[in-house]
Amino acid sequence: AKSKFEYVRKFEQSDQLLPQCWLVVRVDGRGFHKFSERHEFAKPNEPRCIRLMTLAARRVLMEHRSILLAYGQSDEYSFVLHKDTNAFNRRASKLASLIGSLFTSAFVFNWSICFPDRRLLYPPAFDARAVAYPSVRTLRDYLSWRQADCHINNLYNTAFWSLVLRGGLSANQAQERLKGTLAADKNELLFSQFGINYNNEPEVYRKGSLLVRASLLDSQVDAVAEEASVGDNVPDVGEASVEEVSEIAAKVAKAEAESASTLLHIDIIKDKFWTENPRIL
Amino acid sequence: AKSKFEYVRKFEQSDQLLPQCWLVVRVDGRGFHKFSERHEFAKPNEPRCIRLMTLAARRVLMEHRSILLAYGQSDEYSFVLHKDTNAFNRRASKLASLIGSLFTSAFVFNWSICFPDRRLLYPPAFDARAVAYPSVRTLRDYLSWRQADCHINNLYNTAFWSLVLRGGLSANQAQERLKGTLAADKNELLFSQFGINYNNEPEVYRKGSLLVRASLLDSQVDAVAEEASVGDNVPDVGEASVEEVSEIAAKVAKAEAESASTLLHIDIIKDKFWTENPRIL
Amino acid sequence: AKSKFEYVRKFEQSDQLLPQCWLVVRVDGRGFHKFSERHEFAKPNEPRCIRLMTLAARRVLMEHRSILLAYGQSDEYSFVLHKDTNAFNRRASKLASLIGSLFTSAFVFNWSICFPDRRLLYPPAFDARAVAYPSVRTLRDYLSWRQADCHINNLYNTAFWSLVLRGGLSANQAQERLKGTLAADKNELLFSQFGINYNNEPEVYRKGSLLVRASLLDSQVDAVAEEASVGDNVPDVGEASVEEVSEIAAKVAKAEAESASTLLHIDIIKDKFWTENPRIL
Amino acid sequence: AKSKFEYVRKFEQSDQLLPQCWLVVRVDGRGFHKFSERHEFAKPNEPRCIRLMTLAARRVLMEHRSILLAYGQSDEYSFVLHKDTNAFNRRASKLASLIGSLFTSAFVFNWSICFPDRRLLYPPAFDARAVAYPSVRTLRDYLSWRQADCHINNLYNTAFWSLVLRGGLSANQAQERLKGTLAADKNELLFSQFGINYNNEPEVYRKGSLLVRASLLDSQVDAVAEEASVGDNVPDVGEASVEEVSEIAAKVAKAEAESASTLLHIDIIKDKFWTENPRIL
Repeated sequence: AKSKFEYVRKFEQSDQLLPQCWLVVRVDGRGFHKFSERHEFAKPNEPRCIRLMTLAARRVLMEHRSILLAYGQSDEYSFVLHKDTNAFNRRASKLASLIGSLFTSAFVFNWSICFPDRRLLYPPAFDARAVAYPSVRTLRDYLSWRQADCHINNLYNTAFWSLVLRGGLSANQAQERLKGTLAADKNELLFSQFGINYNNEPEVYRKGSLLVRASLLDSQVDAVAEEASVGDNVPDVGEASVEEVSEIAAKVAKAEAESASTLLHIDIIKDKFWTENPRIL
Repeated sequence: AKSKFEYVRKFEQSDQLLPQCWLVVRVDGRGFHKFSERHEFAKPNEPRCIRLMTLAARRVLMEHRSILLAYGQSDEYSFVLHKDTNAFNRRASKLASLIGSLFTSAFVFNWSICFPDRRLLYPPAFDARAVAYPSVRTLRDYLSWRQADCHINNLYNTAFWSLVLRGGLSANQAQERLKGTLAADKNELLFSQFGINYNNEPEVYRKGSLLVRASLLDSQVDAVAEEASVGDNVPDVGEASVEEVSEIAAKVAKAEAESASTLLHIDIIKDKFWTENPRIL
Repeated sequence: AKSKFEYVRKFEQSDQLLPQCWLVVRVDGRGFHKFSERHEFAKPNEPRCIRLMTLAARRVLMEHRSILLAYGQSDEYSFVLHKDTNAFNRRASKLASLIGSLFTSAFVFNWSICFPDRRLLYPPAFDARAVAYPSVRTLRDYLSWRQADCHINNLYNTAFWSLVLRGGLSANQAQERLKGTLAADKNELLFSQFGINYNNEPEVYRKGSLLVRASLLDSQVDAVAEEASVGDNVPDVGEASVEEVSEIAAKVAKAEAESASTLLHIDIIKDKFWTENPRIL
Repeated sequence: AKSKFEYVRKFEQSDQLLPQCWLVVRVDGRGFHKFSERHEFAKPNEPRCIRLMTLAARRVLMEHRSILLAYGQSDEYSFVLHKDTNAFNRRASKLASLIGSLFTSAFVFNWSICFPDRRLLYPPAFDARAVAYPSVRTLRDYLSWRQADCHINNLYNTAFWSLVLRGGLSANQAQERLKGTLAADKNELLFSQFGINYNNEPEVYRKGSLLVRASLLDSQVDAVAEEASVGDNVPDVGEASVEEVSEIAAKVAKAEAESASTLLHIDIIKDKFWTENPRIL
């Protein structure tokens, strides 16, 4: 049964992404500066939020089987689909909105797992966009772009928050102090002033998080991954009750098993990882 | 500080919607048949889910001030932006993904308000799309299309579930019984077999839900709206504790005040509503 | 019979223009500054080229019946299609390329009619683009934009070439002299220095050329149009032989009859023309 | 100087083709069945029209330096641009309309060179579309698609016109006779009934025409090409006067020198040509 108004469907315009291109959907937090302040996130990095982001990303990999891998850092996650995929007929709006919506949904749904002692004050939102990359080279450059961004921002934030939290500077003073400094300057500042060797900072902060479908990885990497994965998924349950903890643990275990993705915090700019795992791309 | 990989941004393609067109973002539940079964929704309509959908839509209107009105029915909600809006530079992917994400987020966030005694079993997802309509005529036809869809489906579902729940038919038998029937046939069936006068069914089911920015409405309608609005927002709190109820009520009140949108269950196909409220479009 | 390579068709992306919008295809000369110099066009306006452009536009109207009107000035012509048209399934590339190609083809084909004593030295090219306008208002503003452009450029060119050809200034000196002048200044300069009352300049130069399907015009305008039309289509045949002239005349007559479009040089910015001819849009 | 109507430019929507993809612009005759009949083309192939198409394509290569090669058959020509090109900012409408317009223009302009004793009766038109191919593989499959199409159609047409012109069948009878036949059947029919060994038919008909920028070819191919090229460009001048012939020859020579493209009639489906000329793609 159809009405005479049915014709308005024709105003929807086709937005199919070019065939034979690798597809990337990037989900990006909206207003997360304010969100992190309102929820009193630790600075420069909030491990519970990273865990929550990764839990949400895992849910996306679990439901959307055409996704090969995901890379996350800061308040964003990028999902990579194979160039041959015909998921949702390659429609950009379908891919972006569904992946963005599920990510958001899982973020809110799992909040209390990762922040058992802190209430979610309001519903956060993420934008999402789908982009086509015509070659492995351009796709890898995309991922390198995001990891380079992770490096640049984390180095800056580590220096900034050291100056503020340990150096006693105001935000403005810290910003002024870092203006025009190069990476080497920031490394030097961290070491000489705060005794921090930046290269010893946790890899999850310096490299971001890579989720790869386990079936596409080679065994050697898998081993390393397992380790990282275990560490990641033990929720920091704070003052949660025993019941809640076991319930939480069960949930996490189930999600992990179903999604069967492996979490890594490694360099994806250099060739090494891709050469050792040729089946991914 | 930028990396040499920055060039990959250029692969994002422009998706600006045509200027001077009315913009509609429709958010649509994915796999809601299964979702409604898993969460044991009442049939043919689950009032608590309608309330939750409307609460989520209100949140969207609250945050995105360029939205004029929203119309919802079944597992979908459509948001209408003024033809002059420059929100998010009219980019289709930004508009669709952000509105879809926030709607989803608010749906999960508010779940326990509307379903205090039923746990959300897994994170649901909604797709979203943005479409441009070049004239008031085509925009109104779009809204009429969705309301006609509401009518057609609700009449069918009312008949179907009467046959199943009260008539003792199996799903297949009910489907068979309704095959090829016209609207008049279904009305007759409901009346003669179950004593149901379809026109006396609640308007929220027959007409769907219209949220309009209060400032765009004329007083007369406003009065009617207020009434509807009050009825809608008293949460059916089931066995929730007194504390929880007051907390819930406070939340709802705040959301409502901030969004200042009015809930109506009326005919939007005929000219009457639009003629009486000329400032909306 | 199809080959296994057929799949490459899928890389063609949909480019349908939004339904219910007025469509404009603008054809624009490429490198016409050089073209006009190489072919020794009169300055500031070459009537034979204007005639040729209009002959080419008429050919386009003759073949593409969904075109309502065309407006030309300088080295460009804009073709307007009705908002309801389904010509070429509203595909932008089809519409633009076919109209642009036919215009070009007719321009070269008819060259010797309009320039019987001057050889075409090389094949010229025109780009073409298709744009959707959602309302009569925006469509009329588009046409006003082109006519305002005609006015601005023609006033400038008339002043510039008066200074160069009659005032003895070099191109640079003339440019310098006109820098920063307003319309009133240029009018004054033309009058005081060269005795030219700009408002008495031929309308074809000041207003450009409007071709309207005769069937859409009201009778009064038609009368005026006929006059203009006749004047326009007597080819300036120079030293062509008698035979050639009669052949040319026959061709022109035939083209004109078939296309049945009326040529006007009038104001299309003000409401008058549109109010008097309500059937056009 | 700008008018208040300038805002209408914003209705032009971006149509940039994806970076790092090979671009193909295909120009295709509109209504060429009728055109070939009206101009009494030889059947199944008109060598003078093939020559004219190639002359037009050469003009396009001459003016648009970012084109690497062109492949033509029947009433179409495809132009390939390098994946790194930034010509016209990779805008689909600019690329398609300009290449289509210039091709059309050169076709009409050069008509009398190739058909010195036959008048062009009306201006023909070609549509044009721009498509992006993300890899050498898909680009080569595109070219293979067009060459396979050439083969399939030419074999059919050779059989069809043999049946009609030499076998005395009507068009309908010939069509009936060929219905459901495979390539082998048509080869057999040609040989047994008309003594034609299809593989000995001229390569220009069986393989179509490939124009490659001479600078991208290896010497060995170049030699073969030169030969083909010479043969191609001696115009069949019919009853043209001596003056006209020399003028024509001069024109052709100039066009050829400037464009410096080499004409080949070879297999481009197999790897051989591409392997021997690695600099092309």
